[in-house]
Amino acid sequence: MRSVSVLGIGETKMGRWPEKSLRDLIKEAGTKAIQDAGIEKESIQALYMSNFNASYLAYQAHMGPLASEVLGLGNIPTIRIEGACASGSLAFRQGMMAVASGMYDIVLVGGAEKMTHRNTEEVTTGIASAMDFELEAKVGITFPSIFAMIANRYFYEYRNVREEMALCAVNAHHNGSLNPDAQMQKEITVEKVKTGFPIAYPLTVFDCSLVTDGAAFLVLTTTEIAKKISKKRIIEVVGSGHAGDTITIGAKKSITGFASTQLAAKQAYEMAGMKPADIDLCEVHDCFTITQIVNIEDLGFFEKGKGGDAVAEGKIALTGSKPINTSGGLKAKGHPIGATGISQIYEIVTQLRGEAGPRQIKKADIGMNHNIGGTAATCVVNIFKGW
Amino acid sequence: MRSVSVLGIGETKMGRWPEKSLRDLIKEAGTKAIQDAGIEKESIQALYMSNFNASYLAYQAHMGPLASEVLGLGNIPTIRIEGACASGSLAFRQGMMAVASGMYDIVLVGGAEKMTHRNTEEVTTGIASAMDFELEAKVGITFPSIFAMIANRYFYEYRNVREEMALCAVNAHHNGSLNPDAQMQKEITVEKVKTGFPIAYPLTVFDCSLVTDGAAFLVLTTTEIAKKISKKRIIEVVGSGHAGDTITIGAKKSITGFASTQLAAKQAYEMAGMKPADIDLCEVHDCFTITQIVNIEDLGFFEKGKGGDAVAEGKIALTGSKPINTSGGLKAKGHPIGATGISQIYEIVTQLRGEAGPRQIKKADIGMNHNIGGTAATCVVNIFKGW
Repeated sequence: MRSVSVLGIGETKMGRWPEKSLRDLIKEAGTKAIQDAGIEKESIQALYMSNFNASYLAYQAHMGPLASEVLGLGNIPTIRIEGACASGSLAFRQGMMAVASGMYDIVLVGGAEKMTHRNTEEVTTGIASAMDFELEAKVGITFPSIFAMIANRYFYEYRNVREEMALCAVNAHHNGSLNPDAQMQKEITVEKVKTGFPIAYPLTVFDCSLVTDGAAFLVLTTTEIAKKISKKRIIEVVGSGHAGDTITIGAKKSITGFASTQLAAKQAYEMAGMKPADIDLCEVHDCFTITQIVNIEDLGFFEKGKGGDAVAEGKIALTGSKPINTSGGLKAKGHPIGATGISQIYEIVTQLRGEAGPRQIKKADIGMNHNIGGTAATCVVNIFKGW
Repeated sequence: MRSVSVLGIGETKMGRWPEKSLRDLIKEAGTKAIQDAGIEKESIQALYMSNFNASYLAYQAHMGPLASEVLGLGNIPTIRIEGACASGSLAFRQGMMAVASGMYDIVLVGGAEKMTHRNTEEVTTGIASAMDFELEAKVGITFPSIFAMIANRYFYEYRNVREEMALCAVNAHHNGSLNPDAQMQKEITVEKVKTGFPIAYPLTVFDCSLVTDGAAFLVLTTTEIAKKISKKRIIEVVGSGHAGDTITIGAKKSITGFASTQLAAKQAYEMAGMKPADIDLCEVHDCFTITQIVNIEDLGFFEKGKGGDAVAEGKIALTGSKPINTSGGLKAKGHPIGATGISQIYEIVTQLRGEAGPRQIKKADIGMNHNIGGTAATCVVNIFKGW
């Protein structure tokens, strides 16, 4: 297998864009990534396109050729990849494997989602398709209720981390306020999170990630080619892991530790020859604040049951020992589902290049993105190293 | 890259199954494929799952973990792949590449679609998501109208092949009547096709493929492993190609020859070191009868403009020089969209193994499947050889 690097990145500002279509979002982010890579679009050999649910939300499937036509990529092969909220990282991993295996030398990986034009009920129905429709959604279960159960179980097995969950939101909003692409640009307080509109106990509206329109793209190539043509810091993919779990929450062995995250992380660490302490920063999947606490434990950053302490001690802050979600995360940057994993990688590359402006962390040499789908039924973890 | 072979196959009977859920269809076809491969499910390392539109038709996305849970595959990585009607062959190609590259040794590739529980308007809307929603579907264009335009343009550029289009349907129904898995089990006449309920001139209802519930699965492994453990004929993947085109029909250079098919076929022939004359049989994407005529020309079996003659001369029959759609094709076996490409491969393997019963063709050593998505915006072509 050949070493793969990220040559170019591009994303839209995340938010509510009633005037922009899927085509517009794709055009903007895709064009930026190709320009950032410093290549001609004619050198792109394949497109790996991620989208979660435009089939339902925008009556649009077959996003590969749609994006290829919008970006003028001619007759290249395209494919759409979906794994719920992990779709973006799955597409990245497929594109990465295609380059690593020698199948293609330069590929484009993109993700896009348009959600805010539908009403709350429609968006809730659309998102619920990431769980088992027959056994879960059909009987009225929603994702906030699932992750509220996870929080309550965590409180029972370890300790009540209500305060620390709120601190995750505070950290996300702070970082988002320093990221021009973030949907949320305002700071928030623990008090405001805890007294927010109740969704499913203990979650309030401020414990939940956002409904977002947005797109993000990456250009991938071999590290050898990147070294020849890139004028920016080389960002190599040094580790990658992908694991699954049952789609239904009821069939899982544990809901306070995600087997898919633990396995995917193990694969990524082994491939990179690294351990959790080697990671300078991580974009973690924070669909809900409790998810972030569970994930930073499952990724091995903190002991099981001690994630809340780490948050309270400020370890996840921009100036902490393990900065988490410097972009603002799903909670404050936004969660344009099919684009989320790719936007996580956009942030890691931006930090590793030292281009993160006011939210730039001091030491940024090794970064990770962690992306789950559904009730952690899919998980992808990637590790990047700046040379 | 390592040589890859098909170790096991399984499919449901295609049809209208109101009592069977997506879970049921997946369980049936997946279990058959694993049994046919003669392996324990624990040896499967990854699942590549194809589905076109359950997000819209059945409120179910995230089909990877759904299928994995149903089949009891534990924590293996799963991914869903979509490229409209070509989804199945795209999933096959991704699974094949994963084995060829050395990433995994044994993978499961599956496809499932449930369509007949929705009414005609809903199914039409669902299928229309394979075209450009904004520029095509939204203004009232449907796939029958697109392929009717293609037929009329073909009549203008070459000659009127109305009779030969009907003969394609007659051939499909004849073959389907010999295939126990086919949705249509009755013969049909040219007269009945031509005088059928009009859909979009010149297409009648009998020129159109079916709305179908069904699933199909394959087990793939290296040819080396297959030789060690298989008790059946070794079916090696010797060629594969994948190309794209614009999603909108208006942006294509030609609509009487599909650039994506021509390019994907060229790649597959080159990889196999073969030419069209080497192919003993082909499962061709016949979403409409005119599509079959255009495709058998684009695949190089017959000269451009002469596909109709070949059909009239009986060359595509079971006893002809180039048997096409021995399974009954999309027209008579059925078109469970996400499963279609995989079911095409199921037929090729069945024929190459000599297990096709009354529809078995005499010489079946090299077979091809050809699968397009949307208005040939995606095309995958694969060539298989029996050893």
